Parts: sequence; structure tokens; C-alpha cells
Amino acid sequence: MIGGGQGAFIGAVHRHAAGLDGHYELVCGAFSRNADNNLETAESLSISADRAYSSWQTLIEEESKLPADQRVQVLAIVTPNHLHVEVARAALEAGIHVFCEKPLAISLDEAKSLKPALAAKPVLLGLAHTYIGYPMVWQARHMVANGELGKIRKVYVEYPQGWLSEGIEMQDNKQAGWRTDPSKSGGSGCMGDIGTHALNMAEFVTGDKVNKLCADMHIHVEGRRLDDDGAALLRFESGATGVLIASQVCAGEENGLKIRVYGEKGGLEWMQMNPNSLIVRSLTAPMVTLRAGGGMPGLCEEAQARCRIPGGHPEGYLEAMGNLYTFFAKAVRSGQTGKADGVPGLEDGLRGNAFIETMLASTASDAKWTDFIASE
Amino acid sequence: MIGGGQGAFIGAVHRHAAGLDGHYELVCGAFSRNADNNLETAESLSISADRAYSSWQTLIEEESKLPADQRVQVLAIVTPNHLHVEVARAALEAGIHVFCEKPLAISLDEAKSLKPALAAKPVLLGLAHTYIGYPMVWQARHMVANGELGKIRKVYVEYPQGWLSEGIEMQDNKQAGWRTDPSKSGGSGCMGDIGTHALNMAEFVTGDKVNKLCADMHIHVEGRRLDDDGAALLRFESGATGVLIASQVCAGEENGLKIRVYGEKGGLEWMQMNPNSLIVRSLTAPMVTLRAGGGMPGLCEEAQARCRIPGGHPEGYLEAMGNLYTFFAKAVRSGQTGKADGVPGLEDGLRGNAFIETMLASTASDAKWTDFIASE
Amino acid sequence: MIGGGQGAFIGAVHRHAAGLDGHYELVCGAFSRNADNNLETAESLSISADRAYSSWQTLIEEESKLPADQRVQVLAIVTPNHLHVEVARAALEAGIHVFCEKPLAISLDEAKSLKPALAAKPVLLGLAHTYIGYPMVWQARHMVANGELGKIRKVYVEYPQGWLSEGIEMQDNKQAGWRTDPSKSGGSGCMGDIGTHALNMAEFVTGDKVNKLCADMHIHVEGRRLDDDGAALLRFESGATGVLIASQVCAGEENGLKIRVYGEKGGLEWMQMNPNSLIVRSLTAPMVTLRAGGGMPGLCEEAQARCRIPGGHPEGYLEAMGNLYTFFAKAVRSGQTGKADGVPGLEDGLRGNAFIETMLASTASDAKWTDFIASE
Amino acid sequence: MIGGGQGAFIGAVHRHAAGLDGHYELVCGAFSRNADNNLETAESLSISADRAYSSWQTLIEEESKLPADQRVQVLAIVTPNHLHVEVARAALEAGIHVFCEKPLAISLDEAKSLKPALAAKPVLLGLAHTYIGYPMVWQARHMVANGELGKIRKVYVEYPQGWLSEGIEMQDNKQAGWRTDPSKSGGSGCMGDIGTHALNMAEFVTGDKVNKLCADMHIHVEGRRLDDDGAALLRFESGATGVLIASQVCAGEENGLKIRVYGEKGGLEWMQMNPNSLIVRSLTAPMVTLRAGGGMPGLCEEAQARCRIPGGHPEGYLEAMGNLYTFFAKAVRSGQTGKADGVPGLEDGLRGNAFIETMLASTASDAKWTDFIASE
Repeated sequence: MIGGGQGAFIGAVHRHAAGLDGHYELVCGAFSRNADNNLETAESLSISADRAYSSWQTLIEEESKLPADQRVQVLAIVTPNHLHVEVARAALEAGIHVFCEKPLAISLDEAKSLKPALAAKPVLLGLAHTYIGYPMVWQARHMVANGELGKIRKVYVEYPQGWLSEGIEMQDNKQAGWRTDPSKSGGSGCMGDIGTHALNMAEFVTGDKVNKLCADMHIHVEGRRLDDDGAALLRFESGATGVLIASQVCAGEENGLKIRVYGEKGGLEWMQMNPNSLIVRSLTAPMVTLRAGGGMPGLCEEAQARCRIPGGHPEGYLEAMGNLYTFFAKAVRSGQTGKADGVPGLEDGLRGNAFIETMLASTASDAKWTDFIASE
Repeated sequence: MIGGGQGAFIGAVHRHAAGLDGHYELVCGAFSRNADNNLETAESLSISADRAYSSWQTLIEEESKLPADQRVQVLAIVTPNHLHVEVARAALEAGIHVFCEKPLAISLDEAKSLKPALAAKPVLLGLAHTYIGYPMVWQARHMVANGELGKIRKVYVEYPQGWLSEGIEMQDNKQAGWRTDPSKSGGSGCMGDIGTHALNMAEFVTGDKVNKLCADMHIHVEGRRLDDDGAALLRFESGATGVLIASQVCAGEENGLKIRVYGEKGGLEWMQMNPNSLIVRSLTAPMVTLRAGGGMPGLCEEAQARCRIPGGHPEGYLEAMGNLYTFFAKAVRSGQTGKADGVPGLEDGLRGNAFIETMLASTASDAKWTDFIASE
Repeated sequence: MIGGGQGAFIGAVHRHAAGLDGHYELVCGAFSRNADNNLETAESLSISADRAYSSWQTLIEEESKLPADQRVQVLAIVTPNHLHVEVARAALEAGIHVFCEKPLAISLDEAKSLKPALAAKPVLLGLAHTYIGYPMVWQARHMVANGELGKIRKVYVEYPQGWLSEGIEMQDNKQAGWRTDPSKSGGSGCMGDIGTHALNMAEFVTGDKVNKLCADMHIHVEGRRLDDDGAALLRFESGATGVLIASQVCAGEENGLKIRVYGEKGGLEWMQMNPNSLIVRSLTAPMVTLRAGGGMPGLCEEAQARCRIPGGHPEGYLEAMGNLYTFFAKAVRSGQTGKADGVPGLEDGLRGNAFIETMLASTASDAKWTDFIASE
Repeated sequence: MIGGGQGAFIGAVHRHAAGLDGHYELVCGAFSRNADNNLETAESLSISADRAYSSWQTLIEEESKLPADQRVQVLAIVTPNHLHVEVARAALEAGIHVFCEKPLAISLDEAKSLKPALAAKPVLLGLAHTYIGYPMVWQARHMVANGELGKIRKVYVEYPQGWLSEGIEMQDNKQAGWRTDPSKSGGSGCMGDIGTHALNMAEFVTGDKVNKLCADMHIHVEGRRLDDDGAALLRFESGATGVLIASQVCAGEENGLKIRVYGEKGGLEWMQMNPNSLIVRSLTAPMVTLRAGGGMPGLCEEAQARCRIPGGHPEGYLEAMGNLYTFFAKAVRSGQTGKADGVPGLEDGLRGNAFIETMLASTASDAKWTDFIASE
């Protein structure tokens, strides 16, 4: 693991998630550039001091010297955005699989620079679009692909949070600090941090791609350097249209990612904060609530494969990320390369960075529609 | 009552609502241009045949001849849109108060033409923006005005319906028929029918006004003549921004008007389909659910004044419209003129028609932002 | 109307409900034994002073002298319990239909005393078990009767309220006052006031009858004279079993009547505070939510007949009582006698009083099971 | 781990939960008496074949021979009930800590027999009353203990499931098989399996103890040998009263454990299927919803200590059990003996078995009240 020292947030999340199904053992890390933090984190995780490396470069170098059956197999990158690509590239070149936080890069160009490294070796790149790990998101995708809603007309995706309502980055909040710092976060704050999740969700569930958008991004807190809020009208390749909302200044909101998709015959609604339910509406039949869980009726195979326990025993966010880790482990074991089945990968990363840049371009433009920047 | 014959929808709604609090007695009507329908409707409502007039013109003419204490005091206009202004003007000129369905007119110019008639006599004009009749909408407005959320930053208003997902106007559905007919509905279908409610709600709760928007309206059903769907990015005079969604092709949705408002310190959420709850979020305190009903804690006076029965005994849509009717009756009794306290009036109607025209102009434009058309 | 003067609660509820559908005109009343209150109430309701009678006896006497087409047709009795039977009997004997609040009587014997009067004339007796007026309660009954759940095994009915958590009857709260006064309320407070609703709901939805129960009733507030809380284990004639909870000291609860019924194949859940939804569970299929409203899919005729407006426009408590009034009006017009179709009647009243007495007997007994007292 | 071979349910749950926080490594097991299953399970869990023991006796014997720093420290017992005590006693006597499924024993006497073993060595016994691992259950307990509801009056606890609605134990369903087999499950099916959870929840949240009850248990499926359903009226030591419902024939229900507690000033409501919310009602203030999650306002220390991630990222059942495992690990590390802080232990097990026996005795009795059998 690179990053995830004491005081970080997402590193611990990855460790819980990876531990859930027993496919991973944490063997080494460069958790922090602060030597004390690095060693204390390693100790608290029962990692021997000699594999608590002082830098990610050292980690890759030293681990590469170990016999194949002893060295790290999968590297989790949980640093701020500006380090993702540099670390990932080095790891991939060293033949180490990479499971990386999103957004993949601080620019689309930087993201593209990973392509050769990924193609050159039999390695995998996974991206922590965690919400794609939820079973009911797969159920939704399945039902759309299966034509159960008819041709899709509308896609509404929203992601309200409230935690950046005040300028807490100016009060030493570490999480807020790097996320609002262009040198660490890239060209966007809110859209990079959560807007990319919303876009990824919309495209994953529909199997469609946004090809034009009209955006309006804002900074609400005085002194803040990156957007904390925005929305966009969307047009998809298929002709569907929709709206994307992402905001970190919806005071009092927790983590309200929600998607609704409507076709000619019916609609779907899924909310991350109530993740085990998928509401299915129909023009001609009463509302149905599909429920996640082993043995629950009506679930497709992909959804079932992401439930560990019987219905009524709620699974949550860690289980969703655990699903990504577990599918990644299966891909490693089965010798897949490039993209792991069931796990977002390079293409999702490229779409994410293209989305950020398209949103910025549209916000800066007086024209209504801005073409989605090509991500290939 | 003008309109509201058998087979109509909203006429019966008005009659239920007006009957609720005992302030009205239905004494006359021109319910339908179909003479049989007109007479049967009158009979079913226990109205004597001689006050079941063959046309609205006759009604106004004949009622005006009756002694003041016998003639109709308040005329409810529940026809398709294209008749609203013509009937309303004649009634106002005859000194009869008017309670009219929305949108007020089929064009902004037509709406403006009511101004002189309303100014010339001691008469009232009320508009059936029914959702403003709900107590918790007043509670929301009160809390915003009272600064409980701090300066407002975001306004999200949405109104998904699904009933026009298919081309039922081509299958003889009367309600769908006139709503999708430009000669009866005006320049917009969805935005006139429900978009105006969404705009009215957003402006009512915030006490703010949209001054620019960027719209994208659509027709989803082949052969349909007016928009059945759309969305807009919003900018308000105060600097707040937001999103408005209105659609009648969200298959399976009933009548999902919902508003969320966020300020620097907290947020509010209200849903028409669960109208007796108002969710209050805060940056610093747990989520609170204020509840409508006599004796419920935390309600402002305006909200209390719109509750008939104790908490836990749900009131709904008819009660909301009943509140408009009852406040209108109080205004009549107390001799108010122009606008009735607590009831949307001419200004709301002008804003509604200006909204429709701004949405159409923006949809037709390649520019991102279109100024809200002046409604004065 | 007898009772329902200023300061009363349920009288106004009846007036709203009766006004909703236009079948009733309030023509006379004895609203209060306080002459000023009586006259002021009459005036506020636009009732002429000569039909604002000083007592219920006078009302019946004087109205009986009026020509048949002028005198009161239906008498609403909204007094405290101790007057129900006396007034109802006199009215029925005078050939006036009676729509009476529940519980019907202050004792089962008193309730039985109405039988001869009801049988002697072509009159109707309706009872305000208002919750039976909700469309989704009829839907639930229909589905049970139709075998959609299979043989019924379990019935859970609960009715938590909180408003009597403190001794407000000792602080001059009028509603609490008579309800906790044995001379006005009868032998039970909570079980008479809301327990009877719970029992009625359970028997109505299942079409079954409780034939044994085991009760535990309590007084929680010092100085209170009647029960404010209780629960019972239930056994039904069919072999089904269940639990009934009724309490007025569940601090903070509003009016939480809820019923759940489970059979061999599935279950139903309905909550009064969310009355337009009926949750349908199944052993083999996902959860379905049936929704009230005109045009909503899956509704039986009886449910449809109790919806005024399209789905998504919530109807509530007043509409439920309005349904009872409207079905009562139809019964009057069609010449029914004894019991009005669609409206609880004498038998429900007898069951209610028998329930109260059975609960009291069981609470006083050391034996586990007490047979339900015969109500015929 | 003893039990938890392929085809079992709860063993995998324990493994997920124990893996979540990185405090445990699974080192050995006797997963099944079927040798193939045992070895396959071990292999799938990356346990070396020499520590996949053919029986629990062998496991304890062989592990005891290993050096202290290599042998198993904590034994998870996830077998059917009849083996719990026998295995636990042997393990405790061998100085191995035990984390055992509930109910602790197949009889109260058997449960008591663990006392000497637990007292004789510096060992810990934990019991998988998993629901006590949820943060909001601790929040509820804290608020009751803190007097925020005033003196407690009512406790309603319910646990509806539907999975035993049919005789699936006669169709070779392994989970249903042993749970309905008196030789493996003990004297009760439903009350042992889920009734004990309900009782434990009620006593944990209130800090009070049931001292009398009146029960009615049933077998609904022909050929079934143990109760699948029941309910009881409860009386607590403090004078509070309540109702307990537990059923496995509520067709279509998943796992609906729910508790409501009402005091003189307010009430609490918590539902296992929506575990991150705690509803707080008050006589004098609007309803508040406390939410689990790092940084959420209003949480007590005990609740905070059981949240891994920020609010809005739902944690669920595995995290609740993970909390029990993690607190158990902390207790092991800090040298606690007997009972681990934050983890149900012997006393809870004794209460559970006493509850089962009291329920059986009451069901068999004609007397209304049966004293809760002493568990000490």
C-alpha cells in the first residue's frame, strides 16, 4: 500500500475492504513520507519494519528484488491524486498489479500515459470506483441491458455531500486540504472527487456514454481554490438525456449518491445510503423493491455474486469495495491482464479525467453544449 | 365554476377542496360545452338547471343580473389553459372574484392583459398553485426567510411524472389531449403543466427569483406536439444556483414534486408525496423531521394555520387546495383586493408564463444562459 | 350534529369530511350544552339560530316536527361516549339516520340496547371507525379474502400514541379530560379510544374474529383514572394468532396505527401515517408496494371506489372519513336499512364494546386466556 | 474455528467479520465431520492441511501441543447449538479464548456448567449476539442510561423472519434442518434462534431485566418439531412493561429485528435493516434521526468507537459482528478475563437459555404470568 498512513481516511477503508474476504494479506507499505507515521502505521498493522518503506520508489525497488512468491503482488495506491499515475506506472512496469484510487490522474494526458505500461506487461489496473461494487448497481445495469425498461430516455444522477460547506481546508483538515489543492487534486475539486463517481455510475448502469454536456461549476467558500459544487445537463450517445449534480456544499448531507434511470416502459432508482434496495417502477405494474442478499428473489447472477449473506443482513460500503478487491483477486489468480472482470479499470479512469476536463471547459464556455473530450 | 364537466379531472378536485372547510357552496356552472354533459354535471352536483349555463359568457351575463346576495361571488376556472384569461377577464370586469387554474395564460402577453381588469375593480384573482397550500411548504419558506439555513446556495427542484410516457393523447385520453395541443395548452406542455409548479415552489420557498437559466426541453413520444420533458440549470438574483427538472415521461413515477434548498448552515427537503414531513439538515446537528399537524412542535404560525387536525392524521392534496380556497374566502370576506393573502395571484401567473417563454427561448438558443423574461 | 362545539376536536373533523364530496349540508345542531358556545358554533357554521338547539332532545323533537324534506336526515353524534347510545336511540326511534363516533357505548349492554331501535324503523346506523375508510385497507381485506396470502397465520396490530404521556387531563385539557373520566368514557380509556380501532382493523382486514385474548393493561400516569396503555396476545376463530398493542404513553408518537398480516404465502403491511401505500411481501417474489390513487395498477374495485384523485396526490384522514360519509349517503339514497354498505355499523360497535370488556376481564384475571365476550 | 464448513452459513459470516479489522488470522479449524468438506474448506481458506483437524477434540489436543506463540488464541464455535458448551468447555479448560454462537447452550443447566471452566483460567468467553455490535444500539443504550427518555415505561421488541414459512427442513435445507431438530437446537427453535436476540436487545438497550412474562409459542408447519413463532407480554424489574415478538413464519420478511423504547419524556426506535439510523422522539420537540458514521453529530463515545468510516457510507451486519470480534481482540490483548468489554458473554448466554426455558414454561402454563427463571 502506498499512502494510507495515520490520519488518512481512505487507506483504512481499503484495508478493511481487502480483509473482508480473506484474499489479501497486507505485507508492505510506504504509508507516509513522515517516517514516524510510516513506522507507526506499519507497526499497528503488524507489518515488519523492513517492509515499511520510506518511499514508494524504495518499495517498488526493494520488493522487486524479493523472490516472486514473497514480493507484493497487488499494490494499493491510496495517495492524493497527483501521485496516482507516477506510482502506478512504476509499479506496472515492475510487473506489480495496481489497485488505485480515483480519479486516476490529475489530467487526461497524464492518465493516457499509463496505457503503454499497462499494455507492456501481464498486469492489471483496477480503479476504486467503489460504488460499482454494490450488488444492486449490477442488478440495475443488468435490467437496463436486458431491455426491462425499454429504450432509455432519462438519466438523473446526483451526489450531494455537505462536508465542504465551510473552509475547513483552511483549518487544517487534511482530507479537505489536498482535495482543494490544485497541485494535489488536479484541475477540479468536487467534480474530480465525486463528480467522477456520478459520471461513472451513470455510464455503468446505462451502458451508454455521455457525448455532450452543459456545465455550471462553482466555488462557494471564500478562499477555496477549486470547485466545490456543480451540475450539468447531459446528452448521451444513444439519444438519452439527463442531469448530473455533484456538490460538497449541501450542508447536512452525508454521501447521497443516487441514480434514476427511466426508459419507455419503466424506471429504476438506487441510493447509495440505502444500498440494498433497488426500486423498480413500471408504466403498467405496481412498484417493486428488489433487495440484495443471498437467496433474495429476482436478482441476476452478477448481483448474487456480490452478496455475502442472506437478505435482511445489511451489507454496505466496505462490502462494496470488498467486492472490487475480491474480483481483482480472482482476476489475478486467473491470469487476466489489463482490466479485471468486475472491476473498473483504465478506461473508466480515462473517462473520469475526460469528464473533469469537459466540465471545466463547459463551465468556461458561453456555448450551451460542449462535446465530451475524447478519452481514447 | 367554468369547466369541470364529467370526464374532466381538476374540476372535481376543486369541488372537493372547496367543500372541505364549509366556506363555499357551488351555485352555478358552465361545466361543458356539451349540453348533456353540462346538465348532467349540474344535476349530479345538485345545481338547479337554470344555473347550469350553456356557456361561460351566459353565466357571467345572467349571474350579473341577480341580486348581489344571490349571485356567484367566486368563479372557479378549471378549463384548459386557452380559456383562462378570456373568462377571467370577463368575470373580473363583472366584479366577480376569480380562482383560476394554472398556468394563468397561454402566453405572457395574454397574462399581462389581465392587469387592468384586476386593477379596475375590488376583485381578487387567485391561482391554483396548489402545492403552496401545504403547511410544510410555508414552514420551509419561514425557515429560509428566518435565516435558519444561512445564505442560500443551492436550490434543487424536481417534478417527475410518468403518465405521458406513451402517446395517450392519440388514444383519446382527454387529459393528455388538451395538454399536448398547442391551441389549448400554449407553447409548452410539460413546462406549462408542471414546470410552472416547480418554478413557483422554488421561488416561493426561497423568496428569491430565477434571473437566468439554461434549458433543454424534449419531446420523447413520436407524434407529440409539445414538450413532455426538460431540465434547466438555474441562477437566482441572490447568487444562489440550482437545477430544475420537470418530466412527464419518467415511466412509473406518480407526482414526485420535491424541493431541496441548502444554505451555508443547513438544508431543507420536502416531497409532495410525503407532504406532512419536512426534513431539516444541519452542518452541526442531527437531522430533524418537522411534522405537520395540530399541536406538532416547531411549526411556524403560517404552517399551523394550514393544519386542520392533530399530527399523525395525514392531510393531503385536497387539504392543500382547500387551504388556498379557505384563504381566498377569508380574503373575500375581509375585503382584500388584487391578491388574496396566502394564495398565489397575478404575479405568480406572470412569473409562470415568463418561465415558459424563457425555457422555450433557452431551449432554442445555442447560448448557455438566457435571461429570465421580465414578467412585469 | 350533536356535540362538536368550539374547543372540541372530532366535530370539526366530521364537518370537513362530510363536506368533502358534497353529499351533506349541515342544517342544525346541538353543539354544546354551553349556550354561548352552541350559538357561536352555529353562527360560525352559517346555521340559523333557530336550528341551533339547546339540547339534543330539543333537536330531535323540533326537527321531527319539520316537513320530511326539510328536517335533518342524518344525525352525526360526536359527543363523549356516555351520550352516544342515548342520543342514537332517540334519533333512530325518530326515524333519523345516525352516524356516531366510536366506541358505540360505555358498556356492551348499553350497546345492545340499540338493537331494537335499529330494527324497528327503516334507519341506518354508521360508526366512525374512520380507518376503515382508507382505500388500502379495503385492498388489504380484498387480498386476504382472495387468498393471495394463503391461510392467515399471524396478525400484528399496533396503535402507539404519545399524547397522554403526561397527566394533561389534570391541566384542563378537554380532550384528555373526558377520555380519562369513567363517567364519560366508560370502563376503559386507551382501549376504548384506540384499542377498539386496532381490533376493528384486525377483524376487518382478516375477515376473522378474535375469540380469546390475554391482556395486560396499565395506568402510567399518577392520578389517572383509566388505562392509558395495554397489549394483548390474540387468538382468532380461524386458528390465526397475533398481538394487539395500544398505548397513549408512547412519548413522541403521533397516531401510529399499523397492521401486518401474514399467511402461508405472503404478508401485508399498512400504516395509517403513510396510508396510500400497502406493502405486499411474498415467499417467492420481491416486495411490491401497491399505491392508492385513481388509475394506479393492481387495485381492487373497493379500493378504487375510495380514491378521488390520481396516484401521487396524497389523500389522508379526512378523505378516509369522507369515504364513510359518502358511502353512508349512498346507503341513505338507495334505501338501505340497518347497516350501510362500506360503513362500520352496529355489529362493529358491539364487537368494540365486547372487546373493551374482554380486555378488562382478562387484565383482572390470573388465567392466561379469556374468552372474547359474546357480542350478539 | 469449529464448524463453518462448506454449506454452512454462519461460519463464513464470522470469517468475514473477523477479517474486517485485521486483528485475526484464521490458522486452524475443524470445519466439518465430513473429511472432504473439512479439507476443502481448509484449502479454500489457505489453511494448511495439518491444521485442518478431523474433530474439535483433535484440534484442541493438537493445538495445545504447539508453542504458545503459534497455537490458536481464540476459538470461534459456529456449530449447531448442541456442541457449543462441550466444545467451549474443553477450549476454555485448555486456556483458549472462546467466541461462541448463540444460544450458548441447549439448556440452562448446560449453560451454567461453563461457569467453573471460565472462572478457572485467564480466558474470555464471547457470545455472538451480533446485533449488540451495531453502533446505534450503543447509542440507544447510552441515551436510556443517561435519562434522556426519562423513566422507561414501554419496551417493544420484534423479530419477524419468513424463511421457515414452509417445511424446508423436510426438503433437505441444512440451516433449517438443525434449527428445527431438538437434538441439535435444544428445546426451542424460533425462540432459541432469534427470540434470544430480541430478549438480549431489550435488556441491553434498557439496562433492565425481564422478570415475568406471558408467552404463546406455536408450530405453524405440519411435521415441524420445534416452535417457529411466538410472542410474549413482558414485565421488567423496573416496572416497565412490553411485548416481545419473534417469528420465522412471517412470509416475505427478511430479518426485521426492531426495538422501540418509550420513557416519560421520549422514545427511541431502531431497526436492524436500517441500522445506521436511530430515531429519537420527544414529547416536546420534533423527531430527530441520529446517524452512525465517523464525525456524525450527537453520538456517544461507545457509538463512535464502533464506526469505521464517515457518515453516509453505510456499515452493516458484518461490521457489527466485526465490532464484537475487534473488542474481543482488544480484550485478549489487554489481558481481560471472563467477559470482554463490549462483547456479550456468559451472563448473556445464561439469560438467553433462561429466557428459552421461561418461554416454554409459560407457553405450557394456564397461568398468565410466569417468573423469569433465575439464570445465576
